[in-house]
Amino acid sequence: MSEFNNVSVVKEANIYFEGKVTSRTVIFPDGSRKTLGLMLPGEYTFNTGSAELMEILSGEMTVVLPGSPDPVAIKGGEAFEVPENSSFKVNVTAVSDYICSFL
Amino acid sequence: MSEFNNVSVVKEANIYFEGKVTSRTVIFPDGSRKTLGLMLPGEYTFNTGSAELMEILSGEMTVVLPGSPDPVAIKGGEAFEVPENSSFKVNVTAVSDYICSFL
Repeated sequence: MSEFNNVSVVKEANIYFEGKVTSRTVIFPDGSRKTLGLMLPGEYTFNTGSAELMEILSGEMTVVLPGSPDPVAIKGGEAFEVPENSSFKVNVTAVSDYICSFL
Repeated sequence: MSEFNNVSVVKEANIYFEGKVTSRTVIFPDGSRKTLGLMLPGEYTFNTGSAELMEILSGEMTVVLPGSPDPVAIKGGEAFEVPENSSFKVNVTAVSDYICSFL
């Protein structure tokens, strides 16, 4: 099991889509943040502020990224990036555990 | 937003009941652990090893504790304790965010 060390964690969860997507915010010593999240099966559209790196620890989904009409299959061990101020659509087909980094 | 500071967080989630109950493990400088978890609506039975303190940050549920046949209503801001090596049944009626401490 890998860990983030010497961090702060916000106690309260971030809860979206009636709890089908949730995350916890981790704050690093340099002030940067990541979220550790879970997505249950379903279709979700997310809007980004900063650009994001989504690392999928486990699970399965297809992702439609801005500017690309074709869904891309993503599974545990893979990752994708999303541009700032954009949106992306995810169709989660198996419970997915992720790390989101703000770039 | 309150935080746990100077901790480690295990990246991989703990996933139960097809993702309807999930948690993240937080490790404190003294080696003790808590989990930050979420329960979606549904009925769940949990078995304890150590005794547990369940602090509910938000949400609503009824809990049937060992030795007490009557369900107890618990909501955000409340807490309950569960003895070691026992089991308890939770009927979650609104998405519930919790901190579990091992006593």
